[in-house]
Amino acid sequence: LSVITLLTDFGNRDGYAGIMKGVIWSIAPQIQIADITHEIAPQNVLEGSLILGRCISYFPPGTVHVAVVDPGVGTSRHPIAVRLGLQYFVGPDNGLVTLWLENTSRDEVKAVLVDKSQFWLPEISSTFHGRDIFAPVAAHLANGVTLEELGSPLEDLQLHDIPKPLPTTYGWQGQVIYIDRFGNCATNLGCKHLATSGKITLQIKHRKIHGMIKSYAERSPGEIVALLDSSGRIEIAAVNASAAQLIQIRVGNIVKIHQ
Amino acid sequence: LSVITLLTDFGNRDGYAGIMKGVIWSIAPQIQIADITHEIAPQNVLEGSLILGRCISYFPPGTVHVAVVDPGVGTSRHPIAVRLGLQYFVGPDNGLVTLWLENTSRDEVKAVLVDKSQFWLPEISSTFHGRDIFAPVAAHLANGVTLEELGSPLEDLQLHDIPKPLPTTYGWQGQVIYIDRFGNCATNLGCKHLATSGKITLQIKHRKIHGMIKSYAERSPGEIVALLDSSGRIEIAAVNASAAQLIQIRVGNIVKIHQ
Amino acid sequence: LSVITLLTDFGNRDGYAGIMKGVIWSIAPQIQIADITHEIAPQNVLEGSLILGRCISYFPPGTVHVAVVDPGVGTSRHPIAVRLGLQYFVGPDNGLVTLWLENTSRDEVKAVLVDKSQFWLPEISSTFHGRDIFAPVAAHLANGVTLEELGSPLEDLQLHDIPKPLPTTYGWQGQVIYIDRFGNCATNLGCKHLATSGKITLQIKHRKIHGMIKSYAERSPGEIVALLDSSGRIEIAAVNASAAQLIQIRVGNIVKIHQ
Repeated sequence: LSVITLLTDFGNRDGYAGIMKGVIWSIAPQIQIADITHEIAPQNVLEGSLILGRCISYFPPGTVHVAVVDPGVGTSRHPIAVRLGLQYFVGPDNGLVTLWLENTSRDEVKAVLVDKSQFWLPEISSTFHGRDIFAPVAAHLANGVTLEELGSPLEDLQLHDIPKPLPTTYGWQGQVIYIDRFGNCATNLGCKHLATSGKITLQIKHRKIHGMIKSYAERSPGEIVALLDSSGRIEIAAVNASAAQLIQIRVGNIVKIHQ
Repeated sequence: LSVITLLTDFGNRDGYAGIMKGVIWSIAPQIQIADITHEIAPQNVLEGSLILGRCISYFPPGTVHVAVVDPGVGTSRHPIAVRLGLQYFVGPDNGLVTLWLENTSRDEVKAVLVDKSQFWLPEISSTFHGRDIFAPVAAHLANGVTLEELGSPLEDLQLHDIPKPLPTTYGWQGQVIYIDRFGNCATNLGCKHLATSGKITLQIKHRKIHGMIKSYAERSPGEIVALLDSSGRIEIAAVNASAAQLIQIRVGNIVKIHQ
Repeated sequence: LSVITLLTDFGNRDGYAGIMKGVIWSIAPQIQIADITHEIAPQNVLEGSLILGRCISYFPPGTVHVAVVDPGVGTSRHPIAVRLGLQYFVGPDNGLVTLWLENTSRDEVKAVLVDKSQFWLPEISSTFHGRDIFAPVAAHLANGVTLEELGSPLEDLQLHDIPKPLPTTYGWQGQVIYIDRFGNCATNLGCKHLATSGKITLQIKHRKIHGMIKSYAERSPGEIVALLDSSGRIEIAAVNASAAQLIQIRVGNIVKIHQ
């Protein structure tokens, strides 16, 4: 018994994700399907890559992750399937796997171009490959078809240009890369950007945050804090409130670590 | 192993769709349940009918589609179950099947009034038939109860008055009938309204669109285009952007085909 | 075959609920998972308790309800598992079970502190116990681990202070406790607060509503009405419209019953 996950920018209103489930269960009736999210900002590959990257390790071996954030649908961008470690990716070759790849050793990665049309739906539209190619390919993979059967080997994968922290005279300069529902602001900074001494100051906009906390409970409601989030990223948050709203943080805002 | 789908205007916040799953799994524990959408605009039967209509063909034989957009709940409108081809509809008799019916030959359609209360929950509220009647009836159907056992035969189904394109001196006049998350605007015009020559001009508001494209990739980002969408409807879209936002399109706006 | 439900304030955008499904299916691959809602207002325990309370009776025996609305995550608030009648709750000990408890006899309630770490994920973050503790504990419970094995017995559960109706000279004074997607306003008043004579008047803001109706169909579209909702609460609604919008109702607004 295996799992397929869906991550898209289709939204939850128009029925597109439901259609993909119909396609999957037509081919693999017993599969479990988990929606990761359908609320990726339209065509925002970076956001899709970030959310996919932090989910992977919590799914069982053999899981097939279908991710469709696909500004290039209908162009010559490749539809691909990739084995990364013990799990699979199916989707467009546009960088959605970038963060997942960063945490996988290269000899555990094998990619194919899914060019064998017997694993697609009979008719292929130019606007909905999630339905016509990715869902059926994922279902066949979950059914036991091997990666190699799905298409021709592919050497290089497209990567997304994810902003990297820069070393500076005072420490590091990073940025906010994702803001969640609670207004918690994830950065591209992690554990390794923290001085081992622990005496650090973070700066975002004009606000200075002294030291990292381990848990919201250490501070009072409304206070702006920095901590390692549940994925190991440095996060700017507000205790039981929205940091994004309180100090008007946007994706792309600079975060400085002085140490 | 069979599938039940849910399409409602209940939203994803109040727990109503979750309750329906509880009812279904109490009766048919092994059934797969797919949410098509719960974000139909409140009481908008046309929208429900459109989305249901384009999903059907992607689900396996035996699928039971429960659709609850039900402004008449608690009135004398009938609760019905319908076999259309190899799949089933369960819901109120208010036109939700209109578009599905258009693509099904009449001798493949059989409807019953679900008036056998042994297939309902023991207590029936006057405001939540999705929970009390439609979910349990769908579960029994998925469990193998036949359509005929569920209630008395019904001859005529209520249809929704879906706007039809009009022939004009210059070609056709249609309208926008649905706008999706991406701002793509589906019309009631299809392939058959296009001149075979292909030399056509579409007009929406004051904007003229020359010719149809096959794929977004043929044009530049932001450009307003017309194409056949993944359900075969003529769609007004913007490449990697929202046509609805760019030129302020609303459902009901007139679309003219000059040919 | 058993069911796990998820009720959280995580939203549907950030992938948090999807991660919990990965954790559950890694431990209990065959379990059915139903999303009740992930749109509880952030950290609103009352709202979570209300929605959980009205769902319970529609799920099969053995269902495990995981509810994570958890302003105290990372503090000393207890993670708990509770058997209430034939079903289970797993989540923080902060009052989420309050309404469920009200409808369960005390000798059918048994609670434990889930302090046996062999049923958690190996690493515990201080911000995401839904993933690290509650999801795996629920999966083990659904797999057949007994409540007693999960941790030490717990005598008292935290309850949420849910506003109670007050008896007055004219009848009862209650309040609006939840407003759903349709703008229907549920109150903390029920059947037992209605005079048996039936000749009552409800007042909300300056609006008087004479008598209760049984079904929306008894009145005209747009009319403000009072009825018993599908959970047995007195509800202020508007026929085929939003009462909340029409007369600007907010949670907390006073509702008076004159009888």
